[in-house]
Amino acid sequence: MNTHRRHSASRFFSTLCFLTALMVPGLSPSLAIAGGKPGVVIQVSENDPAKWNLALNNAGNLIQALGGPDKVDIEIVAYGPGLAMLKADSVVGERLGVAVSDGIHLSACHNTMRAKHVEQRDLYLGVDVVPAGVLEIMQRQQGGWAYIRP
Amino acid sequence: MNTHRRHSASRFFSTLCFLTALMVPGLSPSLAIAGGKPGVVIQVSENDPAKWNLALNNAGNLIQALGGPDKVDIEIVAYGPGLAMLKADSVVGERLGVAVSDGIHLSACHNTMRAKHVEQRDLYLGVDVVPAGVLEIMQRQQGGWAYIRP
Amino acid sequence: MNTHRRHSASRFFSTLCFLTALMVPGLSPSLAIAGGKPGVVIQVSENDPAKWNLALNNAGNLIQALGGPDKVDIEIVAYGPGLAMLKADSVVGERLGVAVSDGIHLSACHNTMRAKHVEQRDLYLGVDVVPAGVLEIMQRQQGGWAYIRP
Repeated sequence: MNTHRRHSASRFFSTLCFLTALMVPGLSPSLAIAGGKPGVVIQVSENDPAKWNLALNNAGNLIQALGGPDKVDIEIVAYGPGLAMLKADSVVGERLGVAVSDGIHLSACHNTMRAKHVEQRDLYLGVDVVPAGVLEIMQRQQGGWAYIRP
Repeated sequence: MNTHRRHSASRFFSTLCFLTALMVPGLSPSLAIAGGKPGVVIQVSENDPAKWNLALNNAGNLIQALGGPDKVDIEIVAYGPGLAMLKADSVVGERLGVAVSDGIHLSACHNTMRAKHVEQRDLYLGVDVVPAGVLEIMQRQQGGWAYIRP
Repeated sequence: MNTHRRHSASRFFSTLCFLTALMVPGLSPSLAIAGGKPGVVIQVSENDPAKWNLALNNAGNLIQALGGPDKVDIEIVAYGPGLAMLKADSVVGERLGVAVSDGIHLSACHNTMRAKHVEQRDLYLGVDVVPAGVLEIMQRQQGGWAYIRP
């Protein structure tokens, strides 16, 4: 390799390191590159309506702070004792309807449903079923989403 | 492209892939490259002094384990029922003073303040106000900070 | 640098940007490149057997969903009031044995042990001791692991 090429190599490399350093610490710029928007997965694993309201407040505050429901991807994942939040007879049912119309994804854990003998028809209209709530949360984080556990 | 150059290209590329693989899974090396230090955002969303003390213990243990307050960026974000932790009359007020002098950032959620009619002057001296606690936590995670919810 | 080389440089660079964009938003592909598998750190910081069982359920559900204990790295970190989960006389002792045999890493916080006068011999067989639970959790997240707080 001649000197000229070595220079070229080294300049390449510096640029690369600089750009990678720029992209890696803040995941949002790279998400933007990939055509995405910020995402957040909110976990509900307690049978506590105060926590359910807090989770819905969190989602609403994010939407408001970021300028609208199309500016952020939000998914609320309910599992374990938290599944009750997403049932058809949930005490926060009215707020779930607003959430769905705001594009907030509501996901119920199928493992929990099976253990508690809850069927899809027992869930609030618009709630999706995911195979395992904890897997859904893990995969969202791996995809660069933030994680909130109210 | 001649063979020599192709070799050079392929070596480049291998080095690049190797380095990127090294850098991406562990975010701390790349944060170090970007001139940063590890950061952690600690969420307080419960009105429970035991949790407040645990959050402050967490912060203190991190500082001790990493070798000093200048070795890690720590922010405690209080929102919802957790806002009470950061009020001037907080039962952990004395520990808040120590935290502030250790460079720990204390952030109160303005959305919660408005809902609970809390003013900046009602907060412990040194507490900052952020527009939305949940947005602050999301953005810190997007910036590569770890998230702890005691 | 002649035109030919510049072209080569620019093609390199485009490929690089494309690949980095692919790799960064979803951390799992890059973890796979580094020879790893997905990892998740589960925090237990409450003295509540229901939470301990939920944490163990979470771990078991992940293993089942992903196709076996060798498909995912799981570490349960207990600190503060959660330390009791990992003591030799824990009410979930039997399940801890199963977890250990499934390759789930059980980690007890040494800071908490010192504060509560708990020795290694007081812990369930197979539990490891880490200097600070919160540091362990932070470092796992920095290493690209997901974080679950049941």
